[in-house]
Amino acid sequence: MTGNLIAIDWGTTNRRVYLLDAAGQVCRTERNGMGLLAVPAGGFAEEVAAIRARFGDWPVILAGMVGSARGWINVPYLDCPAGIADLGAALHWLDDGRTAIVPGLADPAGDVMRGEEVQVLGAVAGGLVPDTALLCQPGTHCKWARVADGRLTTFATAMTGEVFALLKAHSLLADFLGGDVTDDAAFREGVRDGLSGRLTTLLFRVRAAALLGRRPIEQSAAYASGLLIGHDVGGEDLADGQVVHLLADPQLGALYASAIRLAGGTPIIIDSHAAFVAGVTHIWKASQP
Amino acid sequence: MTGNLIAIDWGTTNRRVYLLDAAGQVCRTERNGMGLLAVPAGGFAEEVAAIRARFGDWPVILAGMVGSARGWINVPYLDCPAGIADLGAALHWLDDGRTAIVPGLADPAGDVMRGEEVQVLGAVAGGLVPDTALLCQPGTHCKWARVADGRLTTFATAMTGEVFALLKAHSLLADFLGGDVTDDAAFREGVRDGLSGRLTTLLFRVRAAALLGRRPIEQSAAYASGLLIGHDVGGEDLADGQVVHLLADPQLGALYASAIRLAGGTPIIIDSHAAFVAGVTHIWKASQP
Repeated sequence: MTGNLIAIDWGTTNRRVYLLDAAGQVCRTERNGMGLLAVPAGGFAEEVAAIRARFGDWPVILAGMVGSARGWINVPYLDCPAGIADLGAALHWLDDGRTAIVPGLADPAGDVMRGEEVQVLGAVAGGLVPDTALLCQPGTHCKWARVADGRLTTFATAMTGEVFALLKAHSLLADFLGGDVTDDAAFREGVRDGLSGRLTTLLFRVRAAALLGRRPIEQSAAYASGLLIGHDVGGEDLADGQVVHLLADPQLGALYASAIRLAGGTPIIIDSHAAFVAGVTHIWKASQP
Repeated sequence: MTGNLIAIDWGTTNRRVYLLDAAGQVCRTERNGMGLLAVPAGGFAEEVAAIRARFGDWPVILAGMVGSARGWINVPYLDCPAGIADLGAALHWLDDGRTAIVPGLADPAGDVMRGEEVQVLGAVAGGLVPDTALLCQPGTHCKWARVADGRLTTFATAMTGEVFALLKAHSLLADFLGGDVTDDAAFREGVRDGLSGRLTTLLFRVRAAALLGRRPIEQSAAYASGLLIGHDVGGEDLADGQVVHLLADPQLGALYASAIRLAGGTPIIIDSHAAFVAGVTHIWKASQP
């Protein structure tokens, strides 16, 4: 197997390993649940050694929460605006000189990211999005990032996925949120309400609507998800067809694309894995003398 | 001990019993944790018999979640607008003919309440607020109710207290929300941000602000509480000094009063126990032939 670089997207619950060749093409990948929470304290070096044993003895570049206080080493955030060259110059090198962690970014308005910056800047560097663009990365903590002239200038995070999970697992609404979430009429009604309404009031009405027989209980989850995604999307001014580049898996991508259209925007779904690979490849190159 | 009527405010986690004399004055009260969750299935009649054994063999009027599917009997909601006479006429009588449950109310826009209607209409009937007014009942599920000509016309519920509890117990913010919540500078900053901003985005920044050293971690809870209460209060148009009658305990009342002032409104704190007692007394009278 040929190789050149091992790139690891290491989050809190999942880990994805990519073996890249000299041209930045993916030779092999591995995805599993070996996120931070599954790694014992002090166990990161051993994990990386085991990955090298499986994938080949190549340089390793890591991104994501692995660079946080809960991860291997707490790498300081880099301030926005930041581009590929800034991340390449600010890599945190481990003592072996061939293992590096990409720093996360801080927005001056008071926000942070770790890992998403590689996808965002990789999407630009890889030619997947223009060098001035609005990008959205849905998920537990949904990121909205703006790039200008190829640099990430500002971003904001919404706790959209986490709040939905909290409501589903622990709230008074828990018994009402067991249904499927798809881009259907109930979801779109939720998006429309969530774009401009008061979130905590609209959420209470999910239960009231079921109690009053106004909405079948099996549609409550789709409506509630629409509320949260609508509240999230409503934070950006998307009227007049503003293009939003979505870095998302197909299911969440479809939901956000629908909500962005309802808000007047134009969604374009981008391959987030390709963006990550382009990002680490360009950051790595930028770090080399 | 003289008596005339036993009134019980029976919620999910707490229960408060009042013994009232013929003039509607409170002779004796008891408050404990015998809410719905502490009563075994089918155990409500026995609980009421035990209360009569302690307080005297008087008629009993019950209000709150005791009239829900999780309580003694699921009493249908009455539609708004509704006044004291409507509640009196719609009491759900148990087979003994001397025990009655006050029905909850449904708002046509799709909201429900059980128990709060007694306080709201009691505040009016007891002369604590004018017969056309805006009232707010902070708590796990904060109610905003409008009365006109003495009838409750519309209301809305915000999951303010429940969302704060969820975030504190189960979210990524849990480690950041251990501090005290008082009406201080951090709380007021949260209110100002929450009045108009995007809630799920502002909440994520609670953690980011602590990580970036922008706000001491012990001030995070006050700020987050301010965000949620600001988001809640911002749902009403309070500019130009709109009076809000607050039915609240002193601690939560002080926080909401501060937030209402920041939104341009004029808070007036009302004794919620006196309102409840006036409510049950008037509803009981209205039910008598």
